[in-house]
Amino acid sequence: MESMNITLGTYQTRIYYEDVDAGGICYHSKYLNFCERARSEMFFSKNSSPIQGDYHFVVKKINADFISPALFGNTVTITSSIINFKNVSIMMLQEVKNNDKKLLFKMKVLLVCLKGNKISRIPDSYKRIFELSN
Amino acid sequence: MESMNITLGTYQTRIYYEDVDAGGICYHSKYLNFCERARSEMFFSKNSSPIQGDYHFVVKKINADFISPALFGNTVTITSSIINFKNVSIMMLQEVKNNDKKLLFKMKVLLVCLKGNKISRIPDSYKRIFELSN
Amino acid sequence: MESMNITLGTYQTRIYYEDVDAGGICYHSKYLNFCERARSEMFFSKNSSPIQGDYHFVVKKINADFISPALFGNTVTITSSIINFKNVSIMMLQEVKNNDKKLLFKMKVLLVCLKGNKISRIPDSYKRIFELSN
Amino acid sequence: MESMNITLGTYQTRIYYEDVDAGGICYHSKYLNFCERARSEMFFSKNSSPIQGDYHFVVKKINADFISPALFGNTVTITSSIINFKNVSIMMLQEVKNNDKKLLFKMKVLLVCLKGNKISRIPDSYKRIFELSN
Repeated sequence: MESMNITLGTYQTRIYYEDVDAGGICYHSKYLNFCERARSEMFFSKNSSPIQGDYHFVVKKINADFISPALFGNTVTITSSIINFKNVSIMMLQEVKNNDKKLLFKMKVLLVCLKGNKISRIPDSYKRIFELSN
Repeated sequence: MESMNITLGTYQTRIYYEDVDAGGICYHSKYLNFCERARSEMFFSKNSSPIQGDYHFVVKKINADFISPALFGNTVTITSSIINFKNVSIMMLQEVKNNDKKLLFKMKVLLVCLKGNKISRIPDSYKRIFELSN
Repeated sequence: MESMNITLGTYQTRIYYEDVDAGGICYHSKYLNFCERARSEMFFSKNSSPIQGDYHFVVKKINADFISPALFGNTVTITSSIINFKNVSIMMLQEVKNNDKKLLFKMKVLLVCLKGNKISRIPDSYKRIFELSN
Repeated sequence: MESMNITLGTYQTRIYYEDVDAGGICYHSKYLNFCERARSEMFFSKNSSPIQGDYHFVVKKINADFISPALFGNTVTITSSIINFKNVSIMMLQEVKNNDKKLLFKMKVLLVCLKGNKISRIPDSYKRIFELSN
């Protein structure tokens, strides 16, 4: 086990009609979707995929703070960093900020690697994407 | 080809926060989701599944009228009927009404049967669910 | 502040096409939606609404465990209980189980009462719904 | 009434986990969401908003063809053009293509202008965005 803080890429999205509720603010679970897109985009942006053969990651735990609401039309930026890394799992911190750099949402997410349906050591191909090896 | 009007079951759902947009009315594409749930529920309610071995249906065409908006908290009822039936496809009429029987949305949807990725004759097991045979 | 465990109603839903991802399992953030529907249904089932005049609740914190996946076609039951209650906030435990009573997901959610945009004491009308007063 | 074909901007998005169903293909109603984002982005990209004071547009009719499925990880491009324009409504053609320029989906959508809840003439501020006036 290692404790660390590796900042990976950022991802931007807009808050559209489909994302807001009757109050005109972003529906709470959508922040989890935005964070998932940001994790997937780490792979896609490197011409890779989060699904590699029989391997993929699943969300095991989430610890989330909803700090300030994103509004219809806002552009939000998601930053992702690895804060812990084990043989079979990765803990990430993901933050959502608006254009004024105001923090709207943050979560710690524990991701576990599966091969088929079984928990598995994380293959090196993933570690390269996460910049945990060369 | 046969022209017909067989009314199949009804399905009810509520309009929740996740369904409405900033205006407090149901987001337009959600009516398609409700209609898809109603089609799937025809199968589940008979202890069957819309996916049968290698077979399933895909949406090929939709012709939809958005007549009056569903509001947060409304209960809506979806009725489905078969209006046309061919070897490989089914045309359905689906209607969404509120508790006052007011028509909010209707669509004609053309569903095509696939075996794997290929267009296929509709197996008898589906016809029984759709009450097109015994 | 009071620590407690008041079990409120249950809510059932089906896992539909729209809920599952490429692996045929329920997309992770959908469990939060199901839990929100269960909270809203507490109000609707009593001919009330989660929005009362200028008052409503917002999600402030979520601590979630994804234990076992819900699959396409599964019926899941959400149970909700109040585990902590303050002047302006409520902490709930919500659990999602499948038809075999297997626990699939659980979360603690901190809900804060707002009047307009400002944090507010929880009005008595809400306390009656939550069975915290008569 | 005028018949025309004014091509407006393009919008790109990726197909993420949340967009695909158990078959690994994009859930059918999501194409409507992508088209709505493309329409909203016409406004946002010009520092405007689809909601202007009391005015906004609602979807009244959709005529959609689902031609070929978008897959997990695909980048899709939505093009929008105005094909008909009346005092209170606009008819658009929107097409979704993949990176190989293959047409996956197309729809005609009739949008009606509302002022509050009432059908209204389209204000000039919208016409400028739609490049129907200067």
